[in-house]
Amino acid sequence: MMDITADRKKVVVIGMGLIGGSIALSLKKAGIKVTGLDLDEKVLELVQKKGIEAYHLESHGMAEKTALPAIFTDAKAIFLSIPVSHISDVIKLIAKYVPQGTVITDTGSVKKMVVQEAEALLVDKAAFVGGHPMAGSENSGFEWAREDMFSGVPYIITPTANTNAEALWTTIKLVERIRAKPVLMSPEEHDKIIAALSHLPQVISTTLVNTVAEVYPNNRILNLSGGGWRDTTRIAGSNAVMWKDILISNKDEILPLISAFKEQLSILESAIRKCDEAVIKEKLNNSKIYNKR
Amino acid sequence: MMDITADRKKVVVIGMGLIGGSIALSLKKAGIKVTGLDLDEKVLELVQKKGIEAYHLESHGMAEKTALPAIFTDAKAIFLSIPVSHISDVIKLIAKYVPQGTVITDTGSVKKMVVQEAEALLVDKAAFVGGHPMAGSENSGFEWAREDMFSGVPYIITPTANTNAEALWTTIKLVERIRAKPVLMSPEEHDKIIAALSHLPQVISTTLVNTVAEVYPNNRILNLSGGGWRDTTRIAGSNAVMWKDILISNKDEILPLISAFKEQLSILESAIRKCDEAVIKEKLNNSKIYNKR
Repeated sequence: MMDITADRKKVVVIGMGLIGGSIALSLKKAGIKVTGLDLDEKVLELVQKKGIEAYHLESHGMAEKTALPAIFTDAKAIFLSIPVSHISDVIKLIAKYVPQGTVITDTGSVKKMVVQEAEALLVDKAAFVGGHPMAGSENSGFEWAREDMFSGVPYIITPTANTNAEALWTTIKLVERIRAKPVLMSPEEHDKIIAALSHLPQVISTTLVNTVAEVYPNNRILNLSGGGWRDTTRIAGSNAVMWKDILISNKDEILPLISAFKEQLSILESAIRKCDEAVIKEKLNNSKIYNKR
Repeated sequence: MMDITADRKKVVVIGMGLIGGSIALSLKKAGIKVTGLDLDEKVLELVQKKGIEAYHLESHGMAEKTALPAIFTDAKAIFLSIPVSHISDVIKLIAKYVPQGTVITDTGSVKKMVVQEAEALLVDKAAFVGGHPMAGSENSGFEWAREDMFSGVPYIITPTANTNAEALWTTIKLVERIRAKPVLMSPEEHDKIIAALSHLPQVISTTLVNTVAEVYPNNRILNLSGGGWRDTTRIAGSNAVMWKDILISNKDEILPLISAFKEQLSILESAIRKCDEAVIKEKLNNSKIYNKR
């Protein structure tokens, strides 16, 4: 295959939050030239202090107000690391400035909707490849970004029938450069699996905290909590705007899992009510065995 | 107050599991003479290798078969670190050998039932003081015990109107010697609070794993999981026998919390179904704010 982006060496990362910032830092560590874009001037200062070129992403009238389009001319790939509900808007904003062959990839937690919209917007302009690193934390913002965030982490890449093979290959290579493990699957399969492994836990963790908050409106009782509480509720501290988007975008996969959870909870609840030792022990043992790897 | 146990320096720990083992190790580190008892010969070997005197606890015919009673003659305190459903039986077993004034305390996650039963069994013989260190892990067994397990950890102590003041004081001092932070409350208050901070999270974490196990019977998909899954489900790997006991013993406090959880979950579920951004964001934000300390 001829790579028409072979002479383009730079990677642009749009959104200098926890994940975008970590991608920028880890690409830089791998010796790749990186430019970061963000809307927050304070964040741009932090990024520049880490030795990464960083510019303001004007969300309106981009062409008129800034010299930004030039940033894309030598870009091999563009990472979109922004809330999933903003991906379409940002693609519309940058589409006309992105040279042919430049890969656009995202890091969102929902893939089917994002990939469909992006492919529709970019069909002639560039090659979109959906992506999702299985990294993150309850903390958000560039100040939490780390250059080793993706080391050994599964990084799901979701090609479709429309995906340009060269673009897919470029994405895989970049994922390997940040030391993550590329895992390929369809956007639909991603959304099903991640609903179970990430979105349902988010719903459950949030609900656990809100249940206790209702019973004990004053959170001083948390001074008595141990490691079980700390770990089961860590992600309840995640970014609300980002997660609101995810839960709505992937509701078709999440809602059936919430129903299944309620059924499982009712079985255990009923066993506890009846002091059914056998069922309680079976449920506790099953979860222990399943989760052991 | 005159302390009739002033010349008794030893502490006996019955049950050399994760918690009992850690109590033995941390008391030893504090320079206190410790004797450990357990039913498992292999565990006794491990304990002895750590320089702790350890003997077999005969569960039947103790007096006839072994020289164990002598172990208690110079005991200042006895820690019972065994599943809550066995505490009464072990108290019955040892009651007649425990000298007057020797404190008996436990480390179980349920206090009202345990303290009531223990006080009934021990009324003339010794002083019982309920206790519960807010430490632990999904791992069980002496091999996971650590001498720093309780460092800085809240250690709930649950005196009642019947509690001997000297025994309470001895317990507080021992808790401080293992570097935990004594927190006093009634057994009833303990059971209410710990149902929220520990027992409900256990039920929820177990149910989360069992839900995904039902949808994906093969646990290979866990290879794609990230930190959110790891943390929300860590305690789903806890000891099933110990937890079966806890969930049954404290069901009066746990069941209303499961109902409250289901209500909270239904609110969030309904908001996701209706794409009600405001409610979803509110729920996500509330849990974030409440859990921030």
